[in-house]
Amino acid sequence: MQKPVNVTIWNEFWHEPRNPEVGRIYPEGIHAVLAEALRRHGFESIRTATLEEPDHGLSRAVLDGTDVLLWWGHRKHEEVSDEVVARVQERVLQGMGLIVLHSGHFSKIFRRLMGTSCTLSWRAVGETERLWVVAPHHPIANGLDRSIELAQEEMYGEPFDIPAPDELVFVSWFKGGEVVRSGCCYTRGRGRVFYFRPGHETFPTYHDATIQQVIANAVRWAAPAAVADKPPANVKREPIEPIGR
Amino acid sequence: MQKPVNVTIWNEFWHEPRNPEVGRIYPEGIHAVLAEALRRHGFESIRTATLEEPDHGLSRAVLDGTDVLLWWGHRKHEEVSDEVVARVQERVLQGMGLIVLHSGHFSKIFRRLMGTSCTLSWRAVGETERLWVVAPHHPIANGLDRSIELAQEEMYGEPFDIPAPDELVFVSWFKGGEVVRSGCCYTRGRGRVFYFRPGHETFPTYHDATIQQVIANAVRWAAPAAVADKPPANVKREPIEPIGR
Amino acid sequence: MQKPVNVTIWNEFWHEPRNPEVGRIYPEGIHAVLAEALRRHGFESIRTATLEEPDHGLSRAVLDGTDVLLWWGHRKHEEVSDEVVARVQERVLQGMGLIVLHSGHFSKIFRRLMGTSCTLSWRAVGETERLWVVAPHHPIANGLDRSIELAQEEMYGEPFDIPAPDELVFVSWFKGGEVVRSGCCYTRGRGRVFYFRPGHETFPTYHDATIQQVIANAVRWAAPAAVADKPPANVKREPIEPIGR
Amino acid sequence: MQKPVNVTIWNEFWHEPRNPEVGRIYPEGIHAVLAEALRRHGFESIRTATLEEPDHGLSRAVLDGTDVLLWWGHRKHEEVSDEVVARVQERVLQGMGLIVLHSGHFSKIFRRLMGTSCTLSWRAVGETERLWVVAPHHPIANGLDRSIELAQEEMYGEPFDIPAPDELVFVSWFKGGEVVRSGCCYTRGRGRVFYFRPGHETFPTYHDATIQQVIANAVRWAAPAAVADKPPANVKREPIEPIGR
Repeated sequence: MQKPVNVTIWNEFWHEPRNPEVGRIYPEGIHAVLAEALRRHGFESIRTATLEEPDHGLSRAVLDGTDVLLWWGHRKHEEVSDEVVARVQERVLQGMGLIVLHSGHFSKIFRRLMGTSCTLSWRAVGETERLWVVAPHHPIANGLDRSIELAQEEMYGEPFDIPAPDELVFVSWFKGGEVVRSGCCYTRGRGRVFYFRPGHETFPTYHDATIQQVIANAVRWAAPAAVADKPPANVKREPIEPIGR
Repeated sequence: MQKPVNVTIWNEFWHEPRNPEVGRIYPEGIHAVLAEALRRHGFESIRTATLEEPDHGLSRAVLDGTDVLLWWGHRKHEEVSDEVVARVQERVLQGMGLIVLHSGHFSKIFRRLMGTSCTLSWRAVGETERLWVVAPHHPIANGLDRSIELAQEEMYGEPFDIPAPDELVFVSWFKGGEVVRSGCCYTRGRGRVFYFRPGHETFPTYHDATIQQVIANAVRWAAPAAVADKPPANVKREPIEPIGR
Repeated sequence: MQKPVNVTIWNEFWHEPRNPEVGRIYPEGIHAVLAEALRRHGFESIRTATLEEPDHGLSRAVLDGTDVLLWWGHRKHEEVSDEVVARVQERVLQGMGLIVLHSGHFSKIFRRLMGTSCTLSWRAVGETERLWVVAPHHPIANGLDRSIELAQEEMYGEPFDIPAPDELVFVSWFKGGEVVRSGCCYTRGRGRVFYFRPGHETFPTYHDATIQQVIANAVRWAAPAAVADKPPANVKREPIEPIGR
Repeated sequence: MQKPVNVTIWNEFWHEPRNPEVGRIYPEGIHAVLAEALRRHGFESIRTATLEEPDHGLSRAVLDGTDVLLWWGHRKHEEVSDEVVARVQERVLQGMGLIVLHSGHFSKIFRRLMGTSCTLSWRAVGETERLWVVAPHHPIANGLDRSIELAQEEMYGEPFDIPAPDELVFVSWFKGGEVVRSGCCYTRGRGRVFYFRPGHETFPTYHDATIQQVIANAVRWAAPAAVADKPPANVKREPIEPIGR
């Protein structure tokens, strides 16, 4: 029997109350739609957290009780405190899964885990995105067809300044002529990290059943067998075999 | 014809003047021995820099004129200024090569580029290390035999908390019973990064001709064809193809 | 709820009835010991097959009903029919998992899936092997300590002529001075392949509880979510978007 | 000083003399155009070979004198003798570079080196292909802009049944809605392998200066420092350290 997965969904929650166009699509916030979708996919322990809560809702106790953290941010990356970012990184290295969504590519936590600028080309005019499955065997692609089509999305294009993914699951085609690596798996420490591109706030992407399926698959994939109690450390060791001097 | 490679060798230079045992092996510092070795391997433009110089010897002008930077640090990682570390990272992302040596595994710059803790097991009693070539095709292994033997070295053992290397060139065997991934290649942005394990300050490792050969190979491998003028940035782009709305 | 995994264990079964030393350790064959171990780990659908059965016990019907195939062979690689090898490869590409054990590194099926010679250095005198976990997050390392020690094993050493593993889980230390990549994950088509080094027939390796744990972990990891009905094929497709000529 | 690179260009040479449309574009064969392009890029030792020559022009002597082999085939893959294929594979494992072009994805030699079906989706109606550089640091992308545009090409689409490339250099966008991994680097044994997608025989792709630049870059990248004299073999070794029994 599989252990239950404790999920925390973090959302900047800045656009929804301020931009009526976004508010119509996500009246209670992107995090609420994601939580509901994961509930329908059988996850029972789901928490949400947002920027303006104390500690951005990510106290040590919350993170210690989280198996997989989802991250959506866009405009306020710089307002996320370095202390919380360090805490999230430490938990990832101990084994917590992390799903970074859309404009989260430029969040402090993603850039810190990648070590690169995570910059890319972009254009937010609304155009067809088609995500092609390039790793049909991968658990994150489980149950999908050959591609996923989104009628209206923001474009993100190469060069996307990330380390070569450990596993590349999706590559996106955009009507305007670009491609981008749009489903990227990494391991950092004992933690699994998945970057999933779609989800611009002015389009109803997270209401899409197939996108929800991918995110549910990703949460299952990122859930650790066990999270280490302590952060990794340099450890002095005695010889196992005789050194023979 | 190949372009000349501008090399800068950075050394903490803390042990050599303070520890007589180290001072006997490296009277003018580890950086001086590495510089001399690279000169014999045909590199003509070699500069050195140390912790106590202004900007640790790594001003913007120096870094802008560097194609490949070598990094040896051990006791004073935390005294390297965050500003200089950020500058080195920016240059790596633009294309500068970086060779991280031995205890540099725990330097700020390496941890920042890796995104992990970079912790490991260790033991500094002096024991045989044998570096096995696991990628005989790799340019960094060029001219080597199947393995390199060092009679006396510090032990570094797994788990070594690094991202899976893009290419793994060496794995070390230690007399005391451990192994470690000891030659690890990464790309970060446009820059190539090589971690090379040996080189504890109390052993004459950098006087070893084969170790010098590996470092010379690594400098050649890490040298960029061209370094980008500007750091990577998010860029808004117009459609190439009609969006068709 | 997880689906049951249909396991088939293939064993050359040549040494056990002919070599008394081997017969004492594995009186009913290596496959029998592996089957019993997997049964204790909760697998219920386990079949065995050996070289001398018709079709080597690997008829199309058997393979069609197999989710994960284990492979142990040593002396009789060349007697495995090319037709059966092609059938196994086809099933792997459709999604069947494959666990290749010890001297199976030189089997037709492994060499065919790797595309390389799969040669290595070896020495069968009996010496300590210590398998170090280099990917502590990996499902195949689940529940393990930092290393596994085997008092007596054959040595396999680098260079091991395999493609760089998609994921490297174990590296082995040998008393006689060598190392080898000893737990190697690959994806071929939709199928997952794991090479696991230990298991020379003259040592009781497959009776070791930790080795059994690794093999059980590997079977779980290699089990496909679903196996495709048909082998992959080139397919002509109509345009999805207007070509606009 | 760099050593001269001995290049052999293999072409099926079936379409050119039979199909007038192809004959107009490549009157002396695709191989002749590639040879001329490489000559302009400074390669001096260039040989060509075609299907109908004895040994398909790839005798042991020719292969022994080849540092990098280019391969273009389409209709007659099955007519290439298994003996020649085995010889080419052996040479790759010893260090010879191999550049597989376009429909060569389905050649015996590429499928044998990959271990997968190498199948894909396709459509030959002539449509825009835009190859995006996803690894701007890579030597094969040296001197290129962000993308390469070809007005008319055949479409190859995902899923492309290949092992995950060791390095992914290009991803192609097609007007009709698909993407494909179109510049894929592998190492097999000591040899480097590059698959480069464009080059359908009814379009003038190999006359394109940028495509020629990529192929010249690839030849330089694939050229070995040295090719091993002998094919890899299993080798019995004596202990280096005392076994201590």
